[in-house]
Order: sequence, then structure tokens, then C-alpha cells
Amino acid sequence: MKKETQEKGWIRRIPLHIAPPSLKDNTADVDRLAKAIKRATDIRDVAIDFFFAKKIPSLLREYKYRVQAVVYEGSLSWHLAGLYPLDGDHSIYGIAADLGTSTIALRLIDLTTGEVKDETTFLNPQIEMGQDILTRIHFASQDGGLQMLQAVLIDRLNKEIGRVTERHGMEPDSLVGICAAGNTTMSHLFLGLDPYWICREPYIPSINRFDVIFAARLGLSIHPYAPVLVMPNVGSYFGGDLIAGILASGMTRRAETSFLVDVGTNAEVVIGNRDWLVGCAGAAGPALEGGVTRMGMMAGPGAINKVLLDPDSGRLHLETIGRKPPMGICGSGLIDLVAQLFLAGMIDFRGEYVESRCGSRLREIDGIKHFIVVPSQDSATGNELTLSQKEIDSVIRSKAAMYTILSTITQMTNVSVKEISQFYIAGTFGAYMDARSAIDIGMIPDLSLDIYKPLGNSSLAGATMALLSRAAKEEIYNIRDRVTYVELNVNQEFMTLFGAAKCIPHTDRSLFPSVKEWNLG
Amino acid sequence: MKKETQEKGWIRRIPLHIAPPSLKDNTADVDRLAKAIKRATDIRDVAIDFFFAKKIPSLLREYKYRVQAVVYEGSLSWHLAGLYPLDGDHSIYGIAADLGTSTIALRLIDLTTGEVKDETTFLNPQIEMGQDILTRIHFASQDGGLQMLQAVLIDRLNKEIGRVTERHGMEPDSLVGICAAGNTTMSHLFLGLDPYWICREPYIPSINRFDVIFAARLGLSIHPYAPVLVMPNVGSYFGGDLIAGILASGMTRRAETSFLVDVGTNAEVVIGNRDWLVGCAGAAGPALEGGVTRMGMMAGPGAINKVLLDPDSGRLHLETIGRKPPMGICGSGLIDLVAQLFLAGMIDFRGEYVESRCGSRLREIDGIKHFIVVPSQDSATGNELTLSQKEIDSVIRSKAAMYTILSTITQMTNVSVKEISQFYIAGTFGAYMDARSAIDIGMIPDLSLDIYKPLGNSSLAGATMALLSRAAKEEIYNIRDRVTYVELNVNQEFMTLFGAAKCIPHTDRSLFPSVKEWNLG
Repeated sequence: MKKETQEKGWIRRIPLHIAPPSLKDNTADVDRLAKAIKRATDIRDVAIDFFFAKKIPSLLREYKYRVQAVVYEGSLSWHLAGLYPLDGDHSIYGIAADLGTSTIALRLIDLTTGEVKDETTFLNPQIEMGQDILTRIHFASQDGGLQMLQAVLIDRLNKEIGRVTERHGMEPDSLVGICAAGNTTMSHLFLGLDPYWICREPYIPSINRFDVIFAARLGLSIHPYAPVLVMPNVGSYFGGDLIAGILASGMTRRAETSFLVDVGTNAEVVIGNRDWLVGCAGAAGPALEGGVTRMGMMAGPGAINKVLLDPDSGRLHLETIGRKPPMGICGSGLIDLVAQLFLAGMIDFRGEYVESRCGSRLREIDGIKHFIVVPSQDSATGNELTLSQKEIDSVIRSKAAMYTILSTITQMTNVSVKEISQFYIAGTFGAYMDARSAIDIGMIPDLSLDIYKPLGNSSLAGATMALLSRAAKEEIYNIRDRVTYVELNVNQEFMTLFGAAKCIPHTDRSLFPSVKEWNLG
Repeated sequence: MKKETQEKGWIRRIPLHIAPPSLKDNTADVDRLAKAIKRATDIRDVAIDFFFAKKIPSLLREYKYRVQAVVYEGSLSWHLAGLYPLDGDHSIYGIAADLGTSTIALRLIDLTTGEVKDETTFLNPQIEMGQDILTRIHFASQDGGLQMLQAVLIDRLNKEIGRVTERHGMEPDSLVGICAAGNTTMSHLFLGLDPYWICREPYIPSINRFDVIFAARLGLSIHPYAPVLVMPNVGSYFGGDLIAGILASGMTRRAETSFLVDVGTNAEVVIGNRDWLVGCAGAAGPALEGGVTRMGMMAGPGAINKVLLDPDSGRLHLETIGRKPPMGICGSGLIDLVAQLFLAGMIDFRGEYVESRCGSRLREIDGIKHFIVVPSQDSATGNELTLSQKEIDSVIRSKAAMYTILSTITQMTNVSVKEISQFYIAGTFGAYMDARSAIDIGMIPDLSLDIYKPLGNSSLAGATMALLSRAAKEEIYNIRDRVTYVELNVNQEFMTLFGAAKCIPHTDRSLFPSVKEWNLG
């Protein structure tokens, strides 16, 4: 197992017994090391950064020419990433990182066994400089802004990496690789690249395919010559996080066609199989990412993420993340809630509250109907949590946008929805989303429930795969090059489809045969 | 001509009309540039240093996507060295450098035409920290010593490069390449590599084959991403200057066997042809490099570099470099002087003064015979310039060492001296040395005079060739890999040969049939 992982890796540890120099073999130290690596492996040429090379003669002597060399395959050649004495434990580790706009997740991985040693998540410190991507791009264009955005991120990463390595009694020098996935803007900010043109027509990044560079060049406190691999982008709206997700889903290794959806303010959608891949991104509105005005929140402790309405008593059963008193509702909870309200006839097919059904739970505030989800005495905030008519409308717009994007892309690729073998839903949203509810409100096609697969943090999963495997790393670039990115033209036809999708579950009821309202008389 | 030089070069200028980004082609800026280079040339992949890549988006926009890219072939791939607007004059230039222990020579070259625009020589500023290589290696081992040796050199190079570019009204940014040749220690000091082990058994350098790195990494004030190519070494005593000399001589391109000799305190000797190359280095003593005790000096203004003795009048005709009043005598002058004294019978075959022949020009000082070469009233110093018996002995030891090294290496390689088609003598010494005189004292074999060819600054000539031509750059590494370096074992046989060579011209007079003493009766 150990050996296998090593051979499959693009970061490799090579034990070397190097013949010390003699009058008969006076090959120079650095050349001697390069030669020894060549002899021990199938690596033809190993590049050694010039400043690292300067240290090699004394290191070789200190280790008495018995060393472990760590090498990695970069963009164009193999490179030296580290040099350790042969004796003693010198395990090598790496970090897989998901650089989310809001949340960052790091995973510490043993590169020889593939074992996950630790995992940690924390808020992106850039939030202080801008909640969303657009604000950060604006911030970056101010004097010193880009540098600051990069610095707070690198600084925080260093702190977290330091904490994790300390917890495991590791030397930071034993970390010899990082693989990071993020959306296009996050990748730019991580690398200190100007994101200015990402949000301006014709929306192009500085770089799509990033060079593998070494850690010291970013100021990362791991082995200075450790490689930093950042997942490539397809374009401004199709980033490395999604490519990592595609990799993690395995959809490009199967003959059958799959869907992959990452839902946020933008819905990113990929359809394809081992032969072709089409991706698009479209505005889904903030509703599904906890963005409804009053009670919406990101998935996190205290967020209502599951809702069940008892058909008999009419009572709501709520589940919160971490079983904490409810503070608000996240996207998956909202979908459940709207679905249950619809099935119970408490909202009609247009999403409008049916007063006769809602009874006392409905109240008018400032002339707008509100449904009381959590009375004030039960909520964590002390205020009642309500869902207004406006918020339902917002959910309906989001679900309609989602369904329209899916319809449009299947039409464009000439795929019948019935052909879809797997429907992956990425992220926290995917982990909590109830497919039954999402079908009930007509957000996703009415397919067999077992087709819907939550992917979890697929960005982190893909980064982990790419960190460990040479084949996976290559696949990342293959995926990137193969994705056909289509612009969703919001034209008349799109708007017609969108209009039809604004009913619950849909104007064309025959598309959702499995949706059954409760027969409550 | 212009085109040809470009195609043959490893530093190339590529005019590019890049299609600006559009909604239909939203390739990222850096990827767009790389793609355009690929399309316009046979270069498959071009590496762009990450920090250079950061500047590309704004440069492309500033130049409206109409650019000249300068690329170079590095150790493992092609790299971007510069980016200029397409319009206007943006000629590109390079520097060839001979990094001598004593003297540094720079040549400014137009990379598109191959034209030499300027040349300058100056003393190596490291002399302040150590006259010779050994002292400098010692200095480098002291705290901060290596950094200081590198800093004074880089600093001086920057000043000289600044002066030259200013003289020609060039921007330092238009310098996009440097090719430097030096002995192994000088190359180490230039690059800031520790030379400690060069002079300690088993005498190995830090690096023999240096990576091509970019100028900013050395602090050179030219285009920051311009390549710096340093000629590789064969070993501690066979440096890049000699490899450059071999390249410049062309000996590796001919079927006939040639000799190449670089005479200094160490005599470096190479013998070979297009099929094989053997090199060695041996101590020749300081005599031939101006190191005789009293009147010796390096070749330079005021140094006697040519001596003729009028057989009739017995008067000495002296020629000095720059036609200045004589200050001392350099190696070539010394060889002339000793040869003339021998031919005139003023010294015998053992090099001892013949009083009856020398007459009043011979004087005893502190018990040692001195020959007055320049009376005090004619010398630049106001003191008489004399040649002592001891100094003649020193010349004889040097010439005997030289001849013995040549004999030994021909024996080792099983070459008859008669087979030698060309005998190259490098450096200032080679430029001034009179082959007739050198044969007369038995320093070099008694071959036809037209076989002896001064090479001039062959290190600089080789660096120039390697700067301009891809084939020459490749040849440099071929030469390096093909040289068999032999240690000259100073064993009994060597000592016997050396003893026999200590006569003028030689104990075996039949080896020097062309040497004819004057018949002065």
C-alpha cells in the first residue's frame, strides 16, 4: 500500500545511498544528487531551484550522503522539494485546501499512506475586507488591497497549518506539498494575481492554468521548496473548485451521463461523461444560500436544515445543525419548508399563502403575510422566526432559475433528463438538501431519488485526490481542457422556460408525476 | 542575416499580434500569451516565472495585445524573458562576460544581428579580498565572506553594464541575456555558491552544470527575467573559461588533433578532436604570468612584451605594451629575453650566465648574478630593471613544466606531436607570446610556426558564441560531458621527463632541430 501510493504520486520520497565524492569520481555535489535521483527512478531530469542548490553541498555532507530526496512533478519537469537524512522517521505530509469564499477547509494528509491525519475548517479572513467575491475584487483594485487580501489569507493559513502540525508533533518542514482548490477569484487572491478583469467584460482571469510554484514564493510556512498546486480554472465563472468537484465525482470516468450541481448565489452546473463535458453558471439568486431576507442563514450551528410538517396536527418538526436552538434557516431547510407548505396546501401552486390552511400561524406584518416558523420563546434569538410571502417568492425564483438552467443545458446538449445516471449535488447544501423536497418544489427533475447524490465538500475531496495521485493531477488538466463552457443567454426562450418553472412544482404538471399533495380534504 | 541569427539563437524575439479577449474567446491573459507564442513558433511550452506572470495582464493591455515576446531556452524548457510593445525600436541585447580572476571583460552584443556594440575590461574587484583563487576561497569561508565576494562582483558588473548601456542610450531592460565564462571558483563566487570544497580533497565543486537562472535572482540590473547562462565546469581545476576556449577554438569540430593551452600559474592543457578530448592542469609556476620576483608584471601598459638582441651590437631592442616606458616584463617578454640570451650564448644550456658573453651588463647583487635589461635612466620606475640568475631558473622550471605536461599528455593519449594540426594558446599570454622564442627555450614542441595560433580572450569569444547560438550553447554541454580530465601524477617518470626538459632547449637536442644558436665565434 505504502509503495503503491508512492509510485502513483507526483510527490515522491526517494531513499538514496549516494557514493561520497572521491578522487576517482569528482562529480560536483548538486550534479551528484541529480544523478543519484536519475539512477534510482525513471525521472530523467530533476530541476533544483538555484537557492535550494546552494544548500545541497552542506546538507549532503551533514547527512553523510545518505539521504531521502523528495521530488515533485511540476508543470514542465520534476523538481527537488526536500532533502532529509536517510535514517530516522521522515514521513512526508501534504495539505489539501478548499479555499471557499466564506469557509476554508484544510486537510492534513500522509503522502506515503494517503491517510487523512487531520481536518480543520475556519472562516475566510478576507470576509473582513468583503463578504462576497465582487466586493473583494473591488477591494483588490484599491491601493495595496490585493496585497492585503493575499496577506491575511496566507497569514491565516500559516497559523492553521502551524496549529495542525503542532498538534501532531510534526516539523513544518515535513510538509512537502499543497494542493488548493478555489473559485477563480479565490485562486487569484491566494496567488496575489489581479482579479480586476474577472468581473468585467469579457470576463477573463489573469491565468487559468497556474504554474506549480514553491511554497516560499507565497510565504507559506511549510518546506520552502514544497510545491503549491492550484487547480486551474476554465474561466472567470468556472473555477478550480468545480474542476476538483468533477474529479471527485468520477463523472468523467463513466460512459453514462451525469449532472453535477454546485448551488450558491450562482448555480454552477456541469453535465457530461467520459466523452464530453459541458458547464455553465447562472444566477440562482441568494435564496438557496441562506440569503432570504429575514431568517435566512448559512448552513451552520443553529440553522434549521430539515423541516417536517405533521399532516395530522399541522405541527412543524424542525431539525437544526448541531441540535442547537434555531437561529435561522439555511437553504436545505427552506426547500423542505416550502415543499411541506405546498404539499399541505398552505401555499398554492403560485407559492401564495392559503389563509384558510395556515390559520393562526399566518400574520400580516407591514402589509405582508408572514408564516411563523418558530415562535419567539423557542428561538435562539428571542425573536420569532417567520417566512414572508416575499421570501417564498424569492425561493421560487431561485428554484425556477435552477430548473431552467438544468432544462436549458440538457436541451443544448441534446440529452434527455431520463438519461441522467447520477445527479451530484456539491457542498454543504448538497449534504443537507432533501431531494424529495427539491423535487416537490420543482427545483430538480423528477427522477428516482437514488440518482441524487450529495458530494459533500467535493472541492476538498478533489484537492485531496490531486495531491496524492499523479493520474488525478493529470486528470485535472484534462477536465479543464475538455470542459465546454457555455454562456447561458437569458433570451426570450430562457425567459419562457423560467416563467413556466415559477409554478410549484411546474406549469407542466406532467413533468412531476411523483409530487403528491396531501389529501387533507 | 537578422532572421538567421534569430532562428539559430536560444534567446529569441517573437513579434505577436494577439487577438484581444472577447466573449467568444475568454482565454486568460497569461494562457493567451503562452498560446500565441506556441502558435507563432515551434516552441511547445513556455514557462513564465510566476512573478512575471502577475504583470502580464496589465502589460498586454498597455500594449494593446500587440507585443514582442522575448523567450529563451533554459535547462529544461523555454521561458519568457521579456515583453515589449510591438511598435517602435525594441532591439534586444546581451552581455558576454569573461570572469577572470584578475581581469573581467564584458562585451555588449546585439542579439538580433550578432554585432558587437561595445567591449570593456576592468580589474576584478574581488582582488581587494584576495589576489588569488585560494585566498578568495579562504575569505569566502569567513562569516559573510562569500556574500561579500559575490556582492562586490555583482555591484561592479552592474556599474559597468550601466555605463555601457548609457553610452549607447539603451534601457537596461533591453538587455535580455548574459553568458558568463570563468574558472570554477569564479563561477561559484559569481553565483554565490560555496567554493569551500574546490580546493580540498577530493576537490569537488558545488555544481558543475549550472541552471540557467534569471537576472533578478542574482541582483543583476538588466531585464529581471533575462537568462544568466554560466559555462559549466568539468571539475575544480577545469572551468567554464576553458570550455568556452575549446568552443572558440573549433577544435572539437575538426578530425585532426589540436592542442589548446591556457598558461597561467596553472597550465591548463586540452588535446583532442571531434572524437575525443582529454584535459589536464598542472602547476607551471608563476614565472610565465609575470610572477618573477623583481621585474615581472602582468601583461599591461609598460610591460616589456618583446625583446630582440642585435647580434652585432649586442644591444637589446625592447617593445612595451602601449609603447610606454618600461616598468617590468611580462611572460612573453621573458620568454623572448631568455631565448635571445641563449641564442646569443649569454646563458648556456643550463640557463647560467656566461660572463664572457654578457660583459658589463652582468652585475652581482647580494651574491647573485643580475643581467641589466633596462638601465635606471630608461625605466619608468627610475630603477634599473634586471633579470637575476634565480629568475632565469624560475623561467626554466616553468618552461620545463609546460613541456613535460605536453609530453605527458601526448604520451597518455598516444598522440605523436607530429600529428598536432593546431596549437592554440589562449589569453593575453598567447596573444603576445612569440612561438619562435618559446621553441628556442624548449617550452613548446619544435613544430612549424604556423601551427601555433594565439586565441586571444577565448573565454570571452566562447561566451559570445554561446550567447548567440543555440547550437553553440548545446556544444558547451557536449564538450563538458566529453572531456576526460586526467590528474597529472607527479611520479618518477614525470620527474625524469621534467629533469630532461630543464635544459635549453632540451637534454635531447634532436627534439629541437630548428633551434640555431648564433654563430658569434
